[in-house]
Amino acid sequence: MTRKIAILGATGSIGKSTLDLIERDRDRFEVTAVTAATNVEILADAVRRTGAKLAVVADESCYNDLAELLVGTDCRAAAGSAALVEAALADTELVIAAIVGSAGLEPVMAAVEAGRTIALANKEALVTAGALMTDAAARSGAVLLPVDSEHNAIFQCLAGSRVEDVSRIILTASGGPFRTSTSQAIAAATPSQAVAHPNWSMGAKISVDSATLMNKGLELIEAHYLFGLLPSPQLDVVIHPQSVVHSLVEFVDGSVLAQLGSPDMRIPIAYALAWPERMPTPAQRLDLASIARLDFEEPDVARFPALRLARSALEEGGAAPVVLNAANEVAVASFLAGAIRFPDIVSIVQEALNTASYDAPRSIGDVLEIDRVTREKARSMMQASCA
Amino acid sequence: MTRKIAILGATGSIGKSTLDLIERDRDRFEVTAVTAATNVEILADAVRRTGAKLAVVADESCYNDLAELLVGTDCRAAAGSAALVEAALADTELVIAAIVGSAGLEPVMAAVEAGRTIALANKEALVTAGALMTDAAARSGAVLLPVDSEHNAIFQCLAGSRVEDVSRIILTASGGPFRTSTSQAIAAATPSQAVAHPNWSMGAKISVDSATLMNKGLELIEAHYLFGLLPSPQLDVVIHPQSVVHSLVEFVDGSVLAQLGSPDMRIPIAYALAWPERMPTPAQRLDLASIARLDFEEPDVARFPALRLARSALEEGGAAPVVLNAANEVAVASFLAGAIRFPDIVSIVQEALNTASYDAPRSIGDVLEIDRVTREKARSMMQASCA
Repeated sequence: MTRKIAILGATGSIGKSTLDLIERDRDRFEVTAVTAATNVEILADAVRRTGAKLAVVADESCYNDLAELLVGTDCRAAAGSAALVEAALADTELVIAAIVGSAGLEPVMAAVEAGRTIALANKEALVTAGALMTDAAARSGAVLLPVDSEHNAIFQCLAGSRVEDVSRIILTASGGPFRTSTSQAIAAATPSQAVAHPNWSMGAKISVDSATLMNKGLELIEAHYLFGLLPSPQLDVVIHPQSVVHSLVEFVDGSVLAQLGSPDMRIPIAYALAWPERMPTPAQRLDLASIARLDFEEPDVARFPALRLARSALEEGGAAPVVLNAANEVAVASFLAGAIRFPDIVSIVQEALNTASYDAPRSIGDVLEIDRVTREKARSMMQASCA
Repeated sequence: MTRKIAILGATGSIGKSTLDLIERDRDRFEVTAVTAATNVEILADAVRRTGAKLAVVADESCYNDLAELLVGTDCRAAAGSAALVEAALADTELVIAAIVGSAGLEPVMAAVEAGRTIALANKEALVTAGALMTDAAARSGAVLLPVDSEHNAIFQCLAGSRVEDVSRIILTASGGPFRTSTSQAIAAATPSQAVAHPNWSMGAKISVDSATLMNKGLELIEAHYLFGLLPSPQLDVVIHPQSVVHSLVEFVDGSVLAQLGSPDMRIPIAYALAWPERMPTPAQRLDLASIARLDFEEPDVARFPALRLARSALEEGGAAPVVLNAANEVAVASFLAGAIRFPDIVSIVQEALNTASYDAPRSIGDVLEIDRVTREKARSMMQASCA
């Protein structure tokens, strides 16, 4: 049976891997819509490869280029945020939500409200709008299939379990490039040191988040909203440098289930594409005997305070995760540009949280507004401290 | 809702742990019948603790003692193999099949044919009568819940999956006390060295099986019948000295699920008792950071030929697993008695397999007969070689 799929964010890393998997099993999938931020060439290529009937570019100034590239196909070109929502609501069963950043919020929310099954690769959806998304999903019957390797692991381990039978979720963290560094060395870390992630090939922003452990903090927030567990004591983090175990679930009987695999995003993407069944992937098989050794250690919140900060934002709830995320993005960009030191990232986020006083967002519009104001404030904070 | 349970083998290690768990959640369970081989004192104690209405001792010569101990209770005493079957068929939903050895076969088969849910701790049921048991379960709708930690792990990892989505099952093995020993040292192993299992507290026979890796070979046979997977390439073994990961399942997409836990049999027993839900246990929680390290290595079939032998018996099928199991039991007993050397265990099993020519068993009666004749032959083989 063919499954109809819309790919929101078809030209990024998740989108490309999705297309790769779909092309390996053409009879199983039909792509109805594809979208991109600005990259119309790759988007038009995705149209030709999939036969999608709708292609949307978020940046309206790219519309003419897209339309021209689609001449001779039976695919309609469209642009802008309303068209992204249209793509999310096309005649689909599964929406791949792989738009990066806050631009993804509205189309994801539209798909959630429409009760679709959503393969969720947009982190902001749950970090900044977790309560809104999961409340809407509960009303509409939408299913959120996490694509992030950790949350996908937890989703796999939970399959078929009752939430009251779960005692704890344990997210694994590689520990990043500074896992064994002293506080002094971490304080002096350069951008090129911070983006050198040991196991996964990722963008600069998320690599820095992995170096501060803020990434794991954001994932704790996502896990809370996705799986309905209490921040403490039901959400834990363990450092696991090899990144082979992607996360674990502990049940009330003391049994623990873990999901393991090669560091290949095609595995969680394929899981979401085929769910509740499975589909073959070309990902390398795990060979435990040649891996030989898996290590685990407690995270050190003294050297990596971002983890504690994210946990306190989660416990505060309301607008705090939005502030955490927005201030962190601005601070990381500033660190990557060489304007602030590595430990300043966490200080700026801390200050943004301390000085924020927003009501809990009641809509995606509220989230976007808190996000915008926080970014502005964080930028002025940095200008003030650098002046 | 109360679940009615019969405990076949209430006085052994699995039976005692079952009683311990049931006493912690009395509202959830009602014990209808309990059985023992000979230990009427502990059996009568189990009756008083559970309020069971039927107590069966397998050894008929113990009947009078049991009846006397039950005076003043409203529990009926019975004895012999027909009464064991009666206990299995008492008004129950779940049968704990924890009778050790071939004495367990007939009552387990009766429960399977009656379509009961069976918590299976009797290894012989699947090793020697796997095809008969699983065929009968397919006809009756009986559910086999494995209690053995490895198979229970696999069952947990498979929850809700389609068998065609599974690419491989990987049984973990501690490697036993001779994991790092040379062939020369293994050849000279004494019974006290062989029974010193590094992680689990077990009986002498199974500890020796763990030292030869025959235990893992028998588990491969069980896994084949339980989960319907091919001996090769779908059934694998990996050595994992810490015994924290109890087994793993690899899916066609490259994702691997594993079950982990403390080495406490109350975890898999509780899983079977509460299935498809879960129940709390007092088992120690797994603390990966303090365990710190998990190791994995390929099994060495040159030093541990029992694994290869079991695999070939499984591939041969028919009566071969019965012969393997019976010859191994006789040989291990002989080794423990100091009559043969450690490597002779495998040689005797090999010879028993080489010289056996039985039709595939069509009934539990056939299995018991092949078992009996094989034991006799193995004993004469050893007498001949010691003469």
